[in-house]
Amino acid sequence: MKTAVSLSDLRTARSQLAEPVGFVPTMGYLHAGHLSLVRAARAECASVVASIFVNPTQFGPKEDLSTYPRDLPSDLGLLEAAGVDLVWTPTPEIMYPDGYQTWVTVDEITQALEGSLRPGHFRGVTTVIAKLFNAVQPQKAYFGQKDAQQAAVIRQMRRDLNFPIDIVVCPIVREPDGLAMSSRNVYLNPVERQAALVLSRALQAAQATYDRGERNPRALLQTMEKLIAAEPLARLQYVSCANLDSLLELDEEINGPALLSIAAFIGKTRLIDNCVLGAADLD
Amino acid sequence: MKTAVSLSDLRTARSQLAEPVGFVPTMGYLHAGHLSLVRAARAECASVVASIFVNPTQFGPKEDLSTYPRDLPSDLGLLEAAGVDLVWTPTPEIMYPDGYQTWVTVDEITQALEGSLRPGHFRGVTTVIAKLFNAVQPQKAYFGQKDAQQAAVIRQMRRDLNFPIDIVVCPIVREPDGLAMSSRNVYLNPVERQAALVLSRALQAAQATYDRGERNPRALLQTMEKLIAAEPLARLQYVSCANLDSLLELDEEINGPALLSIAAFIGKTRLIDNCVLGAADLD
Repeated sequence: MKTAVSLSDLRTARSQLAEPVGFVPTMGYLHAGHLSLVRAARAECASVVASIFVNPTQFGPKEDLSTYPRDLPSDLGLLEAAGVDLVWTPTPEIMYPDGYQTWVTVDEITQALEGSLRPGHFRGVTTVIAKLFNAVQPQKAYFGQKDAQQAAVIRQMRRDLNFPIDIVVCPIVREPDGLAMSSRNVYLNPVERQAALVLSRALQAAQATYDRGERNPRALLQTMEKLIAAEPLARLQYVSCANLDSLLELDEEINGPALLSIAAFIGKTRLIDNCVLGAADLD
Repeated sequence: MKTAVSLSDLRTARSQLAEPVGFVPTMGYLHAGHLSLVRAARAECASVVASIFVNPTQFGPKEDLSTYPRDLPSDLGLLEAAGVDLVWTPTPEIMYPDGYQTWVTVDEITQALEGSLRPGHFRGVTTVIAKLFNAVQPQKAYFGQKDAQQAAVIRQMRRDLNFPIDIVVCPIVREPDGLAMSSRNVYLNPVERQAALVLSRALQAAQATYDRGERNPRALLQTMEKLIAAEPLARLQYVSCANLDSLLELDEEINGPALLSIAAFIGKTRLIDNCVLGAADLD
């Protein structure tokens, strides 16, 4: 496995890779969710490139940029064991040098859900992903369904800006008890770790209600709200039942693929989770 | 010479071209300035792709989108004669389909000069150029120094977003009497056509003053302003003497490469022109 820090080293190493190239962009502190993306890329592509970059522009001023967990030696070991060919670990100064002033924004689809609570977050995400795409020039790029809105935003950006890259969205990987894998889970103390199960349980309960035939989005949201309200350590940010493509909230009836999603603080740790209702064609 | 309208036809034809590919994006109604870009691309690249697209998102609501001159048969003949391999002529619906919502913005360098008088113009330019770059995937792209701020903005976007594309900026091509070539020159009636020479003459006069040793930007600007004021058909929008890279206005002294530029209405036709003072390294 090769590693590169500078853009020119990355380009040199990239030019020597067999195509198609699969790309897994990450912020590091890798868990089984990230590794499932690498596995999918490994199965579908001749070469696999990963990046590790804690992107400052997608964190708000009151968010956890400075404390975001990092462990580069462990990450490199995991990526090498997973069969990655090339890892790019640029610095913030490489990605955003003095005088940096270009931004990629996606409008409507970034307004709801995470976008409404994290102003500027998706501008940072789409900008860094556009930069990573142009630097790595993969044929396929792999994202986790855990960050469902992020995946939808990146699919929209890919379509709108004509990126010649297939976007592959892989299923959420969960702990045996149901907690969605997240680098931020490390923030949870043992009591909070137990309380955090309320997110996946709320989604499961709503999914079960849907499976029994309920198509009123309000009914599903109330099911989730009740369960969250019963957990003293949880502070709900939102529950949502939205059109899977537009992410516009469904008011009346679920009559197509829908994204059921939830965001909540468990103690001081903000967690998100989601599930898809109905067959989904993620283009 | 092949032509393509749809994105998929463009991609298929592009994939069959020998590399490196040189790219000349245009809004059509081609003149000798455009053809000089094609010639430069032809000399440096194995294949040459041109695009013709009157990009609606870079026109303001009161600008000349609906009357912008068009002549596709003539353009295709000129491009074929100049040795272009592939021409892409997408429609507005192909470039901006229903639901389109992604924009590329460059901040500081778009604020002055054209950007200050044409709000939203450069957002349209950078967005369409990012789309064209991703669709055509050239190794080199050719722009005219006539649109000096556009060239600087695109160089900034290329650097910031890591586009793996060399930006080549070619000199202004002028009519024998000095008027800078522009598709908009067709708007001028014979009397206005004569009056329009005041732009290049003002620049020449300021350049001569600079060549005699004058380094005070105000002196150069006054030279230009006086000449424009003496032409009854001209209505000045701005004269500027700016740092060539940042496009920040020079206040005190010209001590490095500078862009001397001018924008004026001649009758109802808005024209721009410029010249570079001092040796310039346009990266």
